[in-house]
Amino acid sequence: MAPAETAPDVRALDTLTGLLREDLAAVDAIIHERMGSSVGLIPNLAAYLIDAGGKRVRPMITLAAARLFGESGMAAARNLAAAVEFIHTATLLHDDVVDESALRRGRTSANFVWGNAASVLVGDFLFARSFNLMVDAGDLEILGVLAQASSIIAEGEVMQLAAMNDADAPLDRYLAIIDAKTAALFAAAARVGAMAAGQRGDVADRLAAYGRNLGLAFQLVDDALDYGGRTASLGKNVGDDFREGKVTMPVALAREAGDAEERAFWRRVMGGGGQTESDFDRAVAILRRRGAIDATLEAASGYAEAAKAALAVAPPSAMRTALENLADFVVRRAS
Amino acid sequence: MAPAETAPDVRALDTLTGLLREDLAAVDAIIHERMGSSVGLIPNLAAYLIDAGGKRVRPMITLAAARLFGESGMAAARNLAAAVEFIHTATLLHDDVVDESALRRGRTSANFVWGNAASVLVGDFLFARSFNLMVDAGDLEILGVLAQASSIIAEGEVMQLAAMNDADAPLDRYLAIIDAKTAALFAAAARVGAMAAGQRGDVADRLAAYGRNLGLAFQLVDDALDYGGRTASLGKNVGDDFREGKVTMPVALAREAGDAEERAFWRRVMGGGGQTESDFDRAVAILRRRGAIDATLEAASGYAEAAKAALAVAPPSAMRTALENLADFVVRRAS
Repeated sequence: MAPAETAPDVRALDTLTGLLREDLAAVDAIIHERMGSSVGLIPNLAAYLIDAGGKRVRPMITLAAARLFGESGMAAARNLAAAVEFIHTATLLHDDVVDESALRRGRTSANFVWGNAASVLVGDFLFARSFNLMVDAGDLEILGVLAQASSIIAEGEVMQLAAMNDADAPLDRYLAIIDAKTAALFAAAARVGAMAAGQRGDVADRLAAYGRNLGLAFQLVDDALDYGGRTASLGKNVGDDFREGKVTMPVALAREAGDAEERAFWRRVMGGGGQTESDFDRAVAILRRRGAIDATLEAASGYAEAAKAALAVAPPSAMRTALENLADFVVRRAS
Repeated sequence: MAPAETAPDVRALDTLTGLLREDLAAVDAIIHERMGSSVGLIPNLAAYLIDAGGKRVRPMITLAAARLFGESGMAAARNLAAAVEFIHTATLLHDDVVDESALRRGRTSANFVWGNAASVLVGDFLFARSFNLMVDAGDLEILGVLAQASSIIAEGEVMQLAAMNDADAPLDRYLAIIDAKTAALFAAAARVGAMAAGQRGDVADRLAAYGRNLGLAFQLVDDALDYGGRTASLGKNVGDDFREGKVTMPVALAREAGDAEERAFWRRVMGGGGQTESDFDRAVAILRRRGAIDATLEAASGYAEAAKAALAVAPPSAMRTALENLADFVVRRAS
């Protein structure tokens, strides 16, 4: 693809970061203040993950969703953005314990450095602190949105756990899982940003729809990238879902389109029956032959378009354009 | 001790349960409704622990603290009591993962039945749901009290983790640990009950002092019972702290009063250097010789007296008497 065409998209994250520079610096200060504790292990472990170069996508969505509607409510929006990042970080810490992951953001995961016990408890601490931040934001209705999202995320995580190594897990259950474990926090992040700026009702609903659809697109692209994406450029960090027996959308689609031999293959490799070294390459080959990567990315495009359409509720602005471009970028990073 | 003297105390819990019968039934209904989820593993695992015969001491304190000041605010108090029990249950689930416990409330612990991953995630769910309940109670200041308590509990748990197998852990650090991991929730449970009944300022502070001191007494008695209590009747469930290398008050006191040989013993057995079968009996013998069990129970009595004194802020009533007797009962169960 020509640089002239892709440039606006791939720079979407940078543009958003630029527009929110001051807010993000303020959120970073809040995050570092609120992860503080006289118990040294807490800030050490939290900083290890929080300062590891995450892109702060979720807090940016909260901040941008507020700024779409003017300058008011930004103090609350900053607290809420930090709260959203704490919820996300707590989830990552617990996820790594649940998945027994050894890597996160390209480094040894916290549970492998400090142990599972510390990761569980520091995750609990950050989760509790997220509610302290919400209390400071001072709006019970907003707090209810994030409390509800937190319940749904946990439900999604448990659903995913129960579906692990279930080679026959249906596609709609998978979509329900990512709706809960990923999209719910994106949706809440956008909704509470709009609410902090005084928006309620349909406007808040549409912003939540932006976040939810963006989150779904984001997750499906991640799923496709786990099998090398469209170009099957198998760099680092591929194959995690495969090894963990997580039936994501590409596998669910290929399984449904496959012949008896392929279905037997999927049942063996995803059903906890053991994997050989060549199985992952074979999986990628089947996924490509069945068009499952393309179909997954097309679904992601559909969600990204829905996300952009939902933004029409906000007045046109550089921020709105940046959020629209973010939706495109989320999908194009897999091309 | 003569039955005539002990009877009022040992019946304290029953009396309180009787006075709060309707409230407790309502709280139980809220708990069972709010632990519900379409993800079957969640209510199954939650019910396993919640219906295992816990005494609901913390929610009773919330309910009683509200009833001390009349009939108002009981709808909120019931939601808050359920929230407090959810926080407690989430903490137990995560504790058992952290401690790799195989037993809880006399049964195989949830993490040994469903695995650590499920215990972590269902704990997260219950913790999130506790905040949903607090939102329904509708008071941001009350929510702040429980959010703050949740942070402090997590800090206490991390402190305890960091102190594990540190045979030289000083007594004041141990007291800081139990103040955070145990007493903070008792304090918040009592405070939010009073707040639900419209009490603020000094009255709420005094109720929090009741809860905190009761929690400290409760924990110290537990610590003494883990070594058989005053009578050294070594039934089931003793020796957990010893095996886990947790330096509780009895050990800290005996270590400080001990000779060189005893200090070497404590360093070996609590320092992660391995334990032999006879070590626990030797530990109990040293603790008794050094008067460490008695001294721990005396400290517990002091906290129980402080708890009772704090209740003077409330008008005299059968409920206040029951709460006073609860403080006595907490200590006497170790006699």
